[in-house]
Amino acid sequence: MRPTVGLAVRTPGGPVQPWSFERRDLRPDDVAVAVTYCGVCYSDVEAIHGAREPGLPLVPGHEFVGRVRAVGDAVTRFRVGDEVAVGNCVDSCGACDECRAGAENHCSDGGPTLTYLGVDRRDGRRTQGGWSTEYVVAEAWVHRLPDGLDPAASAPLMCAGITSWEALRHWEVGPGSTVGVVGIGGLGHLGVKFAKALGAEVVAFTATPDRVADITALGADEVVVSSDPDAMAAQARRFDFVLDTASRRHDLSPYLRALRLHGTLCLLGIPPTVEVETRALRVGRHSLSGSGTGSPARVREMLGFCAEHGITADVEVLPSAEIATALDRLERGDVKYRMVLDLGDLGDLTVAS
Amino acid sequence: MRPTVGLAVRTPGGPVQPWSFERRDLRPDDVAVAVTYCGVCYSDVEAIHGAREPGLPLVPGHEFVGRVRAVGDAVTRFRVGDEVAVGNCVDSCGACDECRAGAENHCSDGGPTLTYLGVDRRDGRRTQGGWSTEYVVAEAWVHRLPDGLDPAASAPLMCAGITSWEALRHWEVGPGSTVGVVGIGGLGHLGVKFAKALGAEVVAFTATPDRVADITALGADEVVVSSDPDAMAAQARRFDFVLDTASRRHDLSPYLRALRLHGTLCLLGIPPTVEVETRALRVGRHSLSGSGTGSPARVREMLGFCAEHGITADVEVLPSAEIATALDRLERGDVKYRMVLDLGDLGDLTVAS
Repeated sequence: MRPTVGLAVRTPGGPVQPWSFERRDLRPDDVAVAVTYCGVCYSDVEAIHGAREPGLPLVPGHEFVGRVRAVGDAVTRFRVGDEVAVGNCVDSCGACDECRAGAENHCSDGGPTLTYLGVDRRDGRRTQGGWSTEYVVAEAWVHRLPDGLDPAASAPLMCAGITSWEALRHWEVGPGSTVGVVGIGGLGHLGVKFAKALGAEVVAFTATPDRVADITALGADEVVVSSDPDAMAAQARRFDFVLDTASRRHDLSPYLRALRLHGTLCLLGIPPTVEVETRALRVGRHSLSGSGTGSPARVREMLGFCAEHGITADVEVLPSAEIATALDRLERGDVKYRMVLDLGDLGDLTVAS
Repeated sequence: MRPTVGLAVRTPGGPVQPWSFERRDLRPDDVAVAVTYCGVCYSDVEAIHGAREPGLPLVPGHEFVGRVRAVGDAVTRFRVGDEVAVGNCVDSCGACDECRAGAENHCSDGGPTLTYLGVDRRDGRRTQGGWSTEYVVAEAWVHRLPDGLDPAASAPLMCAGITSWEALRHWEVGPGSTVGVVGIGGLGHLGVKFAKALGAEVVAFTATPDRVADITALGADEVVVSSDPDAMAAQARRFDFVLDTASRRHDLSPYLRALRLHGTLCLLGIPPTVEVETRALRVGRHSLSGSGTGSPARVREMLGFCAEHGITADVEVLPSAEIATALDRLERGDVKYRMVLDLGDLGDLTVAS
């Protein structure tokens, strides 16, 4: 087994602290990645708040980059020293209709294996996440980080990025599209950059008036303050597609009404339930949908696009010793636009075992 | 002006009784239709319950057939004596993007003019519905009733029918599709017949176990009792498209989970709001949508299909003198599958003025 240090919650409601654990020995198709940077996502905060037995200890983190430290005997695509990236899924059944169609992200055998809080399909052990010194993962779920992309700023591409990209691509956003992006945080700011680079007209919606200038600087053609009812009413029938990344509960009707005939409002945020006004669906035959992460092929497509267009996340990098600060600031919404942990110091921190 | 008798609500909560009023004199493009049969739809019940000033008196009825009694000077498509059908819209602006694209049902200038409780775009008068001896309507919104279709059984095609047809056609139901139809009433029973005739595999969902045999007789390949949790769980990932016609509030999650990857649940029923579990949208990237009536072109397409396949509604015909019975039975759900008024007696009833 491979000794590893992670940042873990060990008791319900307890702090996130360094903890020693073991990764599996390499299988023939495994890659051991020395994690260098890993994003801090709002879903990590929710996982920490919800952590309880038997899911303890829990190491969060599901969007990371690193260097290949070792490879299994059958690995063909990676060598020691390669810069790579891993996202929020690390395996799928490979046998269901969805997997065979290249939609491994929709694996119908219980869903794809999550990077943490998943259960490994071969040894039955719980997966532990990327806030750690090393991650061991089958090469099919490892991606080469293209040259020229800053590693720390690329880590969030692997969850925030692919989640926005997958939806924009599925709904065929491109030249001629008018796209709204709701909630300009980790996912939303990449949504704005991607949609703009794909050739769409992009309108960003924010609840925070003092962010308008910053959001304009991301490339949005227009920024609408969602608390302004007149500005919202003026959006009626404007959009082919609205990407809603806001994770807090909010009224969907203004966004449904902002859709053109047959337009789609896609929820990426994670309120467990939403209330929907059926008239706002029926009039204009609007659709409400949801989307999550992408397939490995879609991740490769996104990374190629990012390299071509010079797109990475806007990040603030903190050493892993400052995880408590990172979580506190994220909960308060005080981050532009993604917090990333530099895990270079993690092996040196005082560790519980 | 043209003297007319209608069945009207005249006071809030009051009874539906014969009432004398006037239709407009014919404009050049108008057709006067002597109404023979008009359906009784659940939305008529809701309109009656909600009727108040300035919407009184109110004559309901929005799916009817009749004979052309007179035509305006510029009418080219109809002659006196033709058997025709009219649905729940009677005009649109004709100038917006949607109208010019042939989606008059989605007219963006305030929506199409409704057959009753609408406001005529030229004279500003409130429209009064088809529970009447005569209706005056621009010929663009009048449809020839194909030979061979029973008139009484065809009246419900003009609202219940077109609403189901529009959705099935928009979502391209056909050979190879697996379609669910939820709620087997006026809309749903036509949804089953249409989907089957379009070549789909059709599963009907009913909350009423003792209707299974009847629903099977409509042509459904299978009938699932929605109150049976095991039967519902067994539907997971089965459907390309689910047409939900149930007008009462119900849990949407089992139907969202019953969708295949990228499948759509379309609401035709009219609960004002629904609660949606976002996970049931995200996993499998399902869409929730809504749909209403169709364009005039779509109505013509439907009527042609009905003639070709011998499809009409299963109806119970009552004389207009029995309107109270019809409404009472509809409210109790005691109808297979659509109540239709025979308006032949209406001119002879004692009339208030």
